[in-house]
Amino acid sequence: MVEHPVFGERFREELDRLFHWRRDVRRFERRELPEETLQALIERACSAPSVGLSQPWRFVRVRDEKRRADMRAIFEACNAEALSHQYGERASLYARLKLSGMDEAPEHVAVFVDANPAAGAGLGRGTMPETLAYSAVLAIHTLWLAAAAEGIGVGWVSILEPAAVTRVLGVPEEWRLVGYLCIGYPSEPSEVPELERAGWEHRIPAAELVLER
Amino acid sequence: MVEHPVFGERFREELDRLFHWRRDVRRFERRELPEETLQALIERACSAPSVGLSQPWRFVRVRDEKRRADMRAIFEACNAEALSHQYGERASLYARLKLSGMDEAPEHVAVFVDANPAAGAGLGRGTMPETLAYSAVLAIHTLWLAAAAEGIGVGWVSILEPAAVTRVLGVPEEWRLVGYLCIGYPSEPSEVPELERAGWEHRIPAAELVLER
Repeated sequence: MVEHPVFGERFREELDRLFHWRRDVRRFERRELPEETLQALIERACSAPSVGLSQPWRFVRVRDEKRRADMRAIFEACNAEALSHQYGERASLYARLKLSGMDEAPEHVAVFVDANPAAGAGLGRGTMPETLAYSAVLAIHTLWLAAAAEGIGVGWVSILEPAAVTRVLGVPEEWRLVGYLCIGYPSEPSEVPELERAGWEHRIPAAELVLER
Repeated sequence: MVEHPVFGERFREELDRLFHWRRDVRRFERRELPEETLQALIERACSAPSVGLSQPWRFVRVRDEKRRADMRAIFEACNAEALSHQYGERASLYARLKLSGMDEAPEHVAVFVDANPAAGAGLGRGTMPETLAYSAVLAIHTLWLAAAAEGIGVGWVSILEPAAVTRVLGVPEEWRLVGYLCIGYPSEPSEVPELERAGWEHRIPAAELVLER
C-alpha cells in the first residue's frame, strides 16, 4: 500500500492564500508569456479529474490576429446585448465594468469539451452527460490555480455566443465551448473580486448555502 | 496598488503533488470527520470563482439514514442500468469496479446549482447559462483539493438520476444536481486513478489535446 503524502500546515495556509488570490483577471500587461510556461499550464490542466477518465478537454490556442479580432467582435456584440438587459443604475454600472482582457492578454486559449470522447467508454456519464463539460471545467480550474501560483493571471470570458466561437475557430463539430481564457501577467493584482470592488455583488456567508436532510 | 503575493518554488512543487494525489476516492474508513473540518471544507468551497459572483452553489448534507438508503438504491439501479450498456470484456471489468463509497463514507454532501440565483444579477451568463453549473463545479473542485491537502478523500458519484435525487432530498424546484460527494478518510490511498489501475483507461498525452488556430 502506498502512503498518502502528508501536506503540512504551512502548505495548507499557502493553498488558502492561493484560493483567496486566484482572481478572474481582466487587466493584463502586454508582456509575452514564455512558450514553455503556457505548455506547462496546459499539461497541468490535463492532470485534472474527469468522468470515467474520459479526459474530454480540448484546448485551442488562438494566435491568428484575424481570428482574435473576430473573437473580440463576438464579445463586443454579446456584451452590448447583455447591457441592453440591464436597467437603471445596474445598466450604468454594467457599462463601466471591464469584463474581458482580450485586447491586452498575450495568450488566448479556448477550452472545448468533446461531447463524444472515445476515452472512458461512457463510464459515469449515462445519467449525467453534463459531467463531460464539468471535467473540462475542472481542467480550467487546475490551469487557473497553477497559473496563479506563478503570478500569472487568467480571465474566463463567457460573454460569447458558443456557436459563433466554434465557427470562427473551425473546430470539430462535436466540440462544445466551455470557456475562453485570457492568460498573461496581471497589471492590477487584487485580492478582492473586481465585481465586489465595483459594488456589483458581495460574498454570501457559507452557512446560508447549506441545508441538512 | 496591492502586491500579488509571491508563491515559492517549494509551494508550487507541493501544489503539483496535490494535483497529482487528488484522487476520486471510493474506499473509505468508517471513522467520522470532525464536524468543524466539514464546515471548513464547505467554507473553502464557497471561496471558488463564480460567474458574475453569483455563488449559485448549494450544499445538502445528507445525514438521515433513510435518505442515505434511498440514495444508495438510486445509485444501484443506475449502475445496473449502466452495466447493461457495456459488452464483452468491458462488461466484466465494469462489474468488478467499485464506483461509489456511499456505504462507508461518513459524510455525504449533495451539491446543487440554483438555476436562477439572485446574486450576480445575470452578469456573464446570458449566452452561456451553463456557467452557473460550472461555478458549482469550481466549488466542488476547491473542496476536493482542500480536502486532499488534509488527507481527506472525496469521491464524486455521478451514476445517479438527478430527478430522483432531487425528490429524495426534497430541495427547491429550481435546484439542479451537479454532484454527489462522499467524504471521509481514504482506506487505500493511491497516486494512480482507480480506473487506470483497473485497466479501464489510460492518460492521454497533453500534446494530443491541443490545436492552434
